[in-house]
Amino acid sequence: MINGKIDFRSDTVTVPTEEMRKAMASAVVGDDVYGDDATINELERLAAEIFGKESALFVPTGTMANQLALFTHVQRGEEVILPDNCHIIAHEVGASAIIAGAQLRSVPNVKGEMSLDLVEHYIRKDPDDIHQPRTALISYENADSDGQVRSLEYMKQVKALAEKYQLPVYVDGARIFNAATYLNVDVKDMAQYTDTISVCLSKGLCAPAGSLLMGSKEFITKARRKRKILGGGMRQVGILAAAGILALKEMSRRLQEDHDNAKYLCTSLKEVEGLEVYEERQQINMVFFRLKDFPMDSATLVKYMAEHDVRINGEDNGMMRFVTHNYVSKEEIDKVVQLLKDDAR
Amino acid sequence: MINGKIDFRSDTVTVPTEEMRKAMASAVVGDDVYGDDATINELERLAAEIFGKESALFVPTGTMANQLALFTHVQRGEEVILPDNCHIIAHEVGASAIIAGAQLRSVPNVKGEMSLDLVEHYIRKDPDDIHQPRTALISYENADSDGQVRSLEYMKQVKALAEKYQLPVYVDGARIFNAATYLNVDVKDMAQYTDTISVCLSKGLCAPAGSLLMGSKEFITKARRKRKILGGGMRQVGILAAAGILALKEMSRRLQEDHDNAKYLCTSLKEVEGLEVYEERQQINMVFFRLKDFPMDSATLVKYMAEHDVRINGEDNGMMRFVTHNYVSKEEIDKVVQLLKDDAR
Amino acid sequence: MINGKIDFRSDTVTVPTEEMRKAMASAVVGDDVYGDDATINELERLAAEIFGKESALFVPTGTMANQLALFTHVQRGEEVILPDNCHIIAHEVGASAIIAGAQLRSVPNVKGEMSLDLVEHYIRKDPDDIHQPRTALISYENADSDGQVRSLEYMKQVKALAEKYQLPVYVDGARIFNAATYLNVDVKDMAQYTDTISVCLSKGLCAPAGSLLMGSKEFITKARRKRKILGGGMRQVGILAAAGILALKEMSRRLQEDHDNAKYLCTSLKEVEGLEVYEERQQINMVFFRLKDFPMDSATLVKYMAEHDVRINGEDNGMMRFVTHNYVSKEEIDKVVQLLKDDAR
Amino acid sequence: MINGKIDFRSDTVTVPTEEMRKAMASAVVGDDVYGDDATINELERLAAEIFGKESALFVPTGTMANQLALFTHVQRGEEVILPDNCHIIAHEVGASAIIAGAQLRSVPNVKGEMSLDLVEHYIRKDPDDIHQPRTALISYENADSDGQVRSLEYMKQVKALAEKYQLPVYVDGARIFNAATYLNVDVKDMAQYTDTISVCLSKGLCAPAGSLLMGSKEFITKARRKRKILGGGMRQVGILAAAGILALKEMSRRLQEDHDNAKYLCTSLKEVEGLEVYEERQQINMVFFRLKDFPMDSATLVKYMAEHDVRINGEDNGMMRFVTHNYVSKEEIDKVVQLLKDDAR
Repeated sequence: MINGKIDFRSDTVTVPTEEMRKAMASAVVGDDVYGDDATINELERLAAEIFGKESALFVPTGTMANQLALFTHVQRGEEVILPDNCHIIAHEVGASAIIAGAQLRSVPNVKGEMSLDLVEHYIRKDPDDIHQPRTALISYENADSDGQVRSLEYMKQVKALAEKYQLPVYVDGARIFNAATYLNVDVKDMAQYTDTISVCLSKGLCAPAGSLLMGSKEFITKARRKRKILGGGMRQVGILAAAGILALKEMSRRLQEDHDNAKYLCTSLKEVEGLEVYEERQQINMVFFRLKDFPMDSATLVKYMAEHDVRINGEDNGMMRFVTHNYVSKEEIDKVVQLLKDDAR
Repeated sequence: MINGKIDFRSDTVTVPTEEMRKAMASAVVGDDVYGDDATINELERLAAEIFGKESALFVPTGTMANQLALFTHVQRGEEVILPDNCHIIAHEVGASAIIAGAQLRSVPNVKGEMSLDLVEHYIRKDPDDIHQPRTALISYENADSDGQVRSLEYMKQVKALAEKYQLPVYVDGARIFNAATYLNVDVKDMAQYTDTISVCLSKGLCAPAGSLLMGSKEFITKARRKRKILGGGMRQVGILAAAGILALKEMSRRLQEDHDNAKYLCTSLKEVEGLEVYEERQQINMVFFRLKDFPMDSATLVKYMAEHDVRINGEDNGMMRFVTHNYVSKEEIDKVVQLLKDDAR
Repeated sequence: MINGKIDFRSDTVTVPTEEMRKAMASAVVGDDVYGDDATINELERLAAEIFGKESALFVPTGTMANQLALFTHVQRGEEVILPDNCHIIAHEVGASAIIAGAQLRSVPNVKGEMSLDLVEHYIRKDPDDIHQPRTALISYENADSDGQVRSLEYMKQVKALAEKYQLPVYVDGARIFNAATYLNVDVKDMAQYTDTISVCLSKGLCAPAGSLLMGSKEFITKARRKRKILGGGMRQVGILAAAGILALKEMSRRLQEDHDNAKYLCTSLKEVEGLEVYEERQQINMVFFRLKDFPMDSATLVKYMAEHDVRINGEDNGMMRFVTHNYVSKEEIDKVVQLLKDDAR
Repeated sequence: MINGKIDFRSDTVTVPTEEMRKAMASAVVGDDVYGDDATINELERLAAEIFGKESALFVPTGTMANQLALFTHVQRGEEVILPDNCHIIAHEVGASAIIAGAQLRSVPNVKGEMSLDLVEHYIRKDPDDIHQPRTALISYENADSDGQVRSLEYMKQVKALAEKYQLPVYVDGARIFNAATYLNVDVKDMAQYTDTISVCLSKGLCAPAGSLLMGSKEFITKARRKRKILGGGMRQVGILAAAGILALKEMSRRLQEDHDNAKYLCTSLKEVEGLEVYEERQQINMVFFRLKDFPMDSATLVKYMAEHDVRINGEDNGMMRFVTHNYVSKEEIDKVVQLLKDDAR
């Protein structure tokens, strides 16, 4: 429950835990622009260590992490190869054309996974051809916002292909801990196949705000300057970092519970008449289904749930998505499923 | 023959005709920035009339016509829906991310033709969604640089779809007269299904340089200002316009000859051993084939031809392209085919 | 004292108060992207009320507030008229050329105040002239980062001039409460002469991070979308808003104390041999002086002070600046002045 | 006379000479994108030689030459130091904020000449300061569009200052041959104090269109690619180059005549009652004056002259400018002065 409601809309809705609130209240802070904030320094050190990279940089949002990665990797007019339905294309208001000035070279894909053949096909082979933009970056998500996880083997292959053409790889790891939990590996094992990687502290990890970008020392130095350009260089940001440290250290370890709940929810939904549940797509904390012969349409269902203090999103391209997180319990799942069943009657 | 060589590389290699040279030598010119150039004024008036649009604007190149169309139609960060392999994506050095600041939403396609379902799928439905860029333009080529022509019916359907979502349509008509010749229609019949359209004076039409952009008076007024930003507002440009007028009036009528020659070339190439000729793709002045069991590789063939004063391009993604134009005769085609046969022996 | 040091570098170094920490620990928060964060909603409502504007928007930093104002007011290539030495030009890494794509038309000025004649001279008179960019915005700071305050009368005159040419006025009000305290007026009295205005919660007002942008409902709706582009749309940002509410309500009332301390510091510094103190420039919480016949140079002085747990910045263009704030007491001023006197001996 | 009118508006109105028309009609041309155009190759070789630079590049307009120089020298967000009233700021529609993404750091100046002290003051001293944009270029005009010439000594001093900070110098030399004529030096003597320099073929030199950008081989290679981005890479552009070669070789030698005519015009205008003539500003082919107690206002005078087949521009900031060129004779000057005298009666 969050503020008295069951909230299945997203894991972005998670509020900070009590422990986080205490840590924020007592955090030692300073002016981060002067490098004086001990708590943000500790968070960035910790993140670099966890991901096995030289340096890390705190940014206010996941969108800024993504855009800053592009802005730092790519010269204006150069190309980024990335999956067609990824967050950068779908949900960042066209920012990459404004900030980085990148030309997006989107790859049609199956369940978010670009075929390596297509990626190689899209890589520009002749950097001196006066007509062609240069390829500057390969980017993808793990896990993606459809809840699908790329395997370690796939990550390794993308990295090998990128190295063949001396290209860097950036992974939007907003939910990288969910992916690592699903794969049962350490995030460091995943990060080794990237040049730069991000993580969101605010989704399943429950910090109030903030993402981190990890990479080489040289890259992060450049990104820090460009963060200033975007207006992302906050002052006594140790307040947020205090929650971020707990997100990385503690909250990252409890995601199996969210995945188990998602599986439980998946199983339960299959018992509701009129729903087509995409069980095989349930890998992390997301469950997808369609209203097939359901007595309510999507908009009515959203309203009906709201009347029972349950928050859900309507369908997107015909697909419904329920997301589990720290503030969703088995009992609450039961309640929501029961509401659906009552309704389906 | 151009400068003593047979040139199959492209129709961009065409030089001005004698008639054009005479017209350029005697053209009445003035300062076009002051609107004083009578010849450019006449060219722009003529082009508007031919394409059935209110106004036209001369620009130095086809790339500037395309980029100016995007720059004028699209606000930064908005999306353009266009085919995956079109000139704007493939051969304009990423300019649309720099000048217009557009986010390209490329559509995988068969022979350059975007399926209308995919186009509709890509159109953003909710302009107020704070996460999503807005769709601002649908764009495609006719004919495309693979020599394929879109039918009038297809153009009509794209326009209808665009109108459904109140979107403008821009057609890169660099070779629109070739398309019109193939379809046996007037370019005005094609232009009616566009909001804005361009034509290149320099390819099959043989003018030394220049393209035209046609659209509403309001659009062209905006584009004229933006042409100044791009440094495309030349002074006594009536010199080039004099050739352009002949290109539109005279040269546009003789393209059937190039198409016939391309068909003749196609038939002749089929008799050469070791070539796989894509006869079904021959619609305009382009012939495509592959070296299958040919005794020379592409690079060697280019060199061998050069030694015999024949200019060809090497393969691109494994595909060879020969282009016919005003300076290629049947006899020259025979000569080149004979060279291939000699070689294939 | 902040973290055991006396800190005269800037008011950006201020840490949150105990009351702020408590408020942050207990703040009701939600997902601001869904509009669910009650505390941020309250902060934005409060700010709009205090400044007499329809709407307000929280952003992570003062730089983002400035850049977002430009990005929302200005079309690419249009001009902003602003003082030569303002923060946007001097200290924002050239962001306005990247994000807004604005052409800065900087006005040489005396003590940060642009002469109205020069402003009018710079305003483009002919929006249809195809050669000239259009003027889109007049912008200035109050107070500026040299601690100088613009009078109400000046603000009124700038607004009148702007209206004559139908131009909007944006005021970078990072230290607007300092200016209002100096002028002994309400910030609403100042904001009436602006279309949009910002305030920083983090400088003299002691919140850990965040600024606010105020303007019409229509403007803020546009700015909210553009904030997303810049990656400034945080999630459970009520944590920071809780401190921001106290900054606006409580901390804004105590700035006279900082100004009194700055005056006291100014008087005290005049007694130190070897310093040239710019007493007439002391208006708010800043004191400016030069090392004239002082026995140490700037770098040595910074080091010497650091050894005594006092943080100061070195000279900038030959000028030293000491800043007072909530964590500087009269006793600490005495201690620092004594250190200077000891040193000067 | 041009097209039956006496034209004092600018030297941009000059039409090609008969010799140029003949050269254009018989020029050997080819596809410049393939490097096949012998005439453009010769023009670029010749320009490099004349200016003592490694390479040269033809572009359609002076605006593109300027913008391309910035686009190639400057990274987005970096600063260009340049005089406040130069063409790039005043008359290029804000293009530098769009194409190069440069932050213009304009220097207030006397008669177009930036004081070296101010230039040095504006140069950013600390490239690692995370708040400050970096200075990337010093740029100025010679001669400027107010007809003022910078001395060789001044050019030398600017270059020395730039070298002190390892900055390049770009000179907008649209009228560099006028400046060289006034200084009685070779353009090569001037170009030695620049890294890159442009020249316009179309103003006093009478070619129909085109400018050239000269610099190091490496710089021009980069600029050639960026010219493609701007849509400035024309095909059989040897047509224009043929006129350009005559502009450089022949027309550059006759500018003293235009200057003499301007001096004659200046002297003659002083005899007209009601005009305040700025004799000391007459250096090249431009004469400046004000209507002081003249019986007509500017707009009426423009109309009155037009009725007598004389084209002049109205006042700009209260200043009238008459420009001499190849198509203005002493007799025509006498006629215009007589018209003014008649009118003044």
